[in-house]
Amino acid sequence: MNPLQILDYGGMAVFAATGALAASRKQLDIIGFLFLAGITAIGGGTVRDVVLDLPVFWVVNPGHILVAALVAVLVYFTAHLVESRYKLLLWLDAVGLAAYCVLGAQKGLDATGSATVAILMGTLTATFGGILRDLLAGEPSVLLRTEVYVTAALAGAFVHTAMMLAGLPLPAAAALAFATAFIVRGGALRYGWTFPRYKSRPGRDPEDIP
Amino acid sequence: MNPLQILDYGGMAVFAATGALAASRKQLDIIGFLFLAGITAIGGGTVRDVVLDLPVFWVVNPGHILVAALVAVLVYFTAHLVESRYKLLLWLDAVGLAAYCVLGAQKGLDATGSATVAILMGTLTATFGGILRDLLAGEPSVLLRTEVYVTAALAGAFVHTAMMLAGLPLPAAAALAFATAFIVRGGALRYGWTFPRYKSRPGRDPEDIP
Amino acid sequence: MNPLQILDYGGMAVFAATGALAASRKQLDIIGFLFLAGITAIGGGTVRDVVLDLPVFWVVNPGHILVAALVAVLVYFTAHLVESRYKLLLWLDAVGLAAYCVLGAQKGLDATGSATVAILMGTLTATFGGILRDLLAGEPSVLLRTEVYVTAALAGAFVHTAMMLAGLPLPAAAALAFATAFIVRGGALRYGWTFPRYKSRPGRDPEDIP
Repeated sequence: MNPLQILDYGGMAVFAATGALAASRKQLDIIGFLFLAGITAIGGGTVRDVVLDLPVFWVVNPGHILVAALVAVLVYFTAHLVESRYKLLLWLDAVGLAAYCVLGAQKGLDATGSATVAILMGTLTATFGGILRDLLAGEPSVLLRTEVYVTAALAGAFVHTAMMLAGLPLPAAAALAFATAFIVRGGALRYGWTFPRYKSRPGRDPEDIP
Repeated sequence: MNPLQILDYGGMAVFAATGALAASRKQLDIIGFLFLAGITAIGGGTVRDVVLDLPVFWVVNPGHILVAALVAVLVYFTAHLVESRYKLLLWLDAVGLAAYCVLGAQKGLDATGSATVAILMGTLTATFGGILRDLLAGEPSVLLRTEVYVTAALAGAFVHTAMMLAGLPLPAAAALAFATAFIVRGGALRYGWTFPRYKSRPGRDPEDIP
Repeated sequence: MNPLQILDYGGMAVFAATGALAASRKQLDIIGFLFLAGITAIGGGTVRDVVLDLPVFWVVNPGHILVAALVAVLVYFTAHLVESRYKLLLWLDAVGLAAYCVLGAQKGLDATGSATVAILMGTLTATFGGILRDLLAGEPSVLLRTEVYVTAALAGAFVHTAMMLAGLPLPAAAALAFATAFIVRGGALRYGWTFPRYKSRPGRDPEDIP
């Protein structure tokens, strides 16, 4: 497998696991596990391919999606062994996000040659599956959590695009970008990294005005 | 009309009715009825066509969508006659699900020849309109209810695809698959059929280990 | 700039502002502002282009989306000066809705020549960005508010399509349609214009039956 295929299958497997973990938190049945795992795994890539007007990856190669199904079944039988399923969900989501921001950026670059499109596509691909999972499972959206999330996808997509344009070989660029995104998101999960959040500030104090 | 057209117009009409019933539960105005009815009726088929890279059915044949509009108006003036609008919504949703899982599977089969894609497409087409309806109307998602739901769509799509590949004529395969999906979902609504739902289980009891 | 480009950039800017205002209400960080602003600004147009099978506008011309980014940053630093951010959000949303219903109708007309598709596309393009914003930000959907909303988009798309088919020059048709949509939605916000909302009515009183 080349590096992009590793990211593809790996990302799909971990995103499927997060969908299945969300299903376990909602106490769904095995088909619910398969459905949520599938949607989470293919959501980001489907939007990516549709927007870029490429053939949708799982229509071209449906065997692909079996990975997600296997993972869903595995999670169904093992999730009870995990101490905190939500914590595991967040960490696997971080791995998937790092994989898909690279993959999305590369696909965007291949399809259009535009760095801006590549970065936007990387960010969108990486975050859309998780957004869809949270919407469908009725979970609080990972988007609205305090620690940085979209930022990690954006950073990874940016690094991959910049390194590719700088002439780095694909495996090096992809590895560097994957590491960037995972470190940013992992740091956020481990150490609570946040950007300053918007706070409603009072208007200027009249006494400040001479 | 051939059997696929019957499923198409019939499915659109009943899904439109479920959208309009959701609008009635939210006490929307007539345009809200039309909008939710329309989105529910065309949601699944639109995603199906976009993902398969076919021309979107209602862009090709916009007259089509008038069925949904008529149904929405009809529901606006008659919904108060219904004893339980939510119960009716669920039953009509079952009819629509049975119609669209066949239609989606057949379109997927025609477009790609792959059984896996056909089954996935049938399942997605059948469930997506209802998911969208619940999301937009702020209703609890039909996905997260206890009785089997996605399973019925999956069963119908599977039966249709298998029968077509086994060489049955289209009307027979479609009728058999429609019946399968409707019986599974109807049984779930009537008798509360469920699969075992995931339950958080305690870890192995240390005393069990010799 | 021609009138359509003005509507395009203008609509994108105001929808981006509504996304950023939603981000401010959720106290997100600057990247959250950029993300919600971007999704709101491009959501409607992306669905429009994908459904019409046109190249997605921001993939063709990614520089375009910088407008949304600039607006998001601006709102991040100035939102605290606004007395009611939700009120401002609703008014800017009204401007965006008026701009996008014209643009969507014109794109639908250009792509298919069908008046029905043009009107549906105008309505969808105008409302989808706001729906997506409210879903992702976890805000109560603008769809479910009491005052007319979808109606304004429908009215604008209808007027634009009718005027174009009647042979009016594009700028005149667009201006008239923009005004129609904005007046309908603005009147709804200012004066609380509503259509009669569906009310569950009791069945016929048995005493009424002779």
